[in-house]
Amino acid sequence: MKKVNIGILGCTGVVGRQMMQVLEEYRIPVDRFVPLASANSAGSKVVFNGKEYTVQEAKETSFEGLDYVLGAVGNGMAKLFAPHIVKAGAVFIDNSSSFRMDPEVPLVVPEINGEDAFKNKGIISNPNCSTIITMVAVGAINAISPITEMFASTYQAVSGAGKAGLEELENQMADMAAGRALERNVFPHQIAMNVIPCIGSETDNGYTTEEMKMQNEGRKILHNPGLKVSCTCVRVPVMRSHSISVTFRTKEKVSVEQAEKAVSVAPGCVLTTDFQGRNYPTPLDTSGQDLVWVGRIREDLTSDRGLTLWCCGDQVRKGAASNAVQILKLLAERA
Amino acid sequence: MKKVNIGILGCTGVVGRQMMQVLEEYRIPVDRFVPLASANSAGSKVVFNGKEYTVQEAKETSFEGLDYVLGAVGNGMAKLFAPHIVKAGAVFIDNSSSFRMDPEVPLVVPEINGEDAFKNKGIISNPNCSTIITMVAVGAINAISPITEMFASTYQAVSGAGKAGLEELENQMADMAAGRALERNVFPHQIAMNVIPCIGSETDNGYTTEEMKMQNEGRKILHNPGLKVSCTCVRVPVMRSHSISVTFRTKEKVSVEQAEKAVSVAPGCVLTTDFQGRNYPTPLDTSGQDLVWVGRIREDLTSDRGLTLWCCGDQVRKGAASNAVQILKLLAERA
Repeated sequence: MKKVNIGILGCTGVVGRQMMQVLEEYRIPVDRFVPLASANSAGSKVVFNGKEYTVQEAKETSFEGLDYVLGAVGNGMAKLFAPHIVKAGAVFIDNSSSFRMDPEVPLVVPEINGEDAFKNKGIISNPNCSTIITMVAVGAINAISPITEMFASTYQAVSGAGKAGLEELENQMADMAAGRALERNVFPHQIAMNVIPCIGSETDNGYTTEEMKMQNEGRKILHNPGLKVSCTCVRVPVMRSHSISVTFRTKEKVSVEQAEKAVSVAPGCVLTTDFQGRNYPTPLDTSGQDLVWVGRIREDLTSDRGLTLWCCGDQVRKGAASNAVQILKLLAERA
Repeated sequence: MKKVNIGILGCTGVVGRQMMQVLEEYRIPVDRFVPLASANSAGSKVVFNGKEYTVQEAKETSFEGLDYVLGAVGNGMAKLFAPHIVKAGAVFIDNSSSFRMDPEVPLVVPEINGEDAFKNKGIISNPNCSTIITMVAVGAINAISPITEMFASTYQAVSGAGKAGLEELENQMADMAAGRALERNVFPHQIAMNVIPCIGSETDNGYTTEEMKMQNEGRKILHNPGLKVSCTCVRVPVMRSHSISVTFRTKEKVSVEQAEKAVSVAPGCVLTTDFQGRNYPTPLDTSGQDLVWVGRIREDLTSDRGLTLWCCGDQVRKGAASNAVQILKLLAERA
């Protein structure tokens, strides 16, 4: 791989910092490195590949000479800077939801639809975290026979709400242990010792924006426009890994054995049939690494062409930062 | 209601103690009260209706003269004492799973199939906790048109594992806050900051005993032998209330409006369409009371005859103790 010039837009958040770490771990050969953030974080220091950098305020002119810009900012900043990144000739690999459903923008999980990345016109979207993890788990089964319907209930970690989300759970747990009153700023209700069945904002059909991503982004990633999904997204008091309980039906019957075989050889997946004597992962097992762990594959008892499974993956890594770096790597290796 | 003579078998556990409290709250007029437990707990004291009692060791002869025995013990003790309770002429309202699928034994959620209780031959079973909560939530909709298929993912509190389960979560949280190593005795993995997708033991089809109860007990409670359920039971770090994410299909279409109306008037249910500005309960909201709270009723996006909803209920109360006392009350009021 040739040396590349990389910018990270939003380098001081949980995902931005994780992107730096993953770039190092994957030994991506970086020539110029430009850490960018909003005015608030500009001036702070970050260390990348052993060298200290001063974070710069992102401006329209920040992207000249860069090959790739990894985006770890919200929709507002992503939309604001995308045209300038493209104009500068860099590829914007964006973790926000701004461009995901744009037909001109590939939405990529490298293990599933990596080739789509090469059709980019300057922007590639990184999918929603729960969607990435679920799609890695079911992608190889969908390749045997297309998934027609899916029922998903998520168990989403607080890292999905960034640094502030992680701190809120830690603080609430410490306050609880000390018998102090709990503070709440990030989540709409206490998250320690609780679960909250509402992530994102409600849409017209009663599902939230987060829940609709599983269907809408899932269709685009799997190239399966007929996919229908009823999803319920739930925040749980877990730090980093998301879990998803999924039942789905395929056009033709796929047996448990076929599904297990497909998952066991699928890139990015681990089939947990016998991990420490059990057949399932927990979120704690899967934190701090990039693979999606899939267990408890069994027949859907309501249908002769359905399966039920449980999967977990690190939300900050495969659900966000690592997936983006994997897209970058895919492009850079062929550049 | 005439005064009744009541024994509690297993009066020192979480459910047994809750039964005493619910008997008091419901002002069940009790004449003789006999607190029973295994030899380990015999001799300890309990207070009921302001009077202190010494817990007696349960023996074959403990049940003479009692009208009702509430069972809050495991399958072994339940099976051991059931014949003696029946022989003594008392009705055994049993919270264990021993007799639930026995065709001679009614399995009762009073709001749904209370009349079944009167067909008892001395034993009535209290259903599984998640099943009770889910059936209260969907019972009124099933009455409009029978549920054909159900997809359920549970978020089950640690109280389901009794006093030891509650203590394990509290201790792990305190140890975590203090930076101490965590101890684990009850759950197969750390439960603080984690979720565990395995409750009960695995059966031949890959589902656990706990998961199969939703289908098998659900059929019996709803008088719906055709009900098919794919369930995933997951332990979450929550103290007392279980939550269930459910999608289900009915024989004929039931609209969201019809379902909301049915739930809003169903006994034992609260429809949460606007509770503190939101349309869903969390487990914390529903702890310490007997109603099942149902929210987020919306169309199943995979079918034109399906619905998705979220429900929560106190596992120790409606999921166990209160349901048993409600059965007792039903019988005693007509005796």
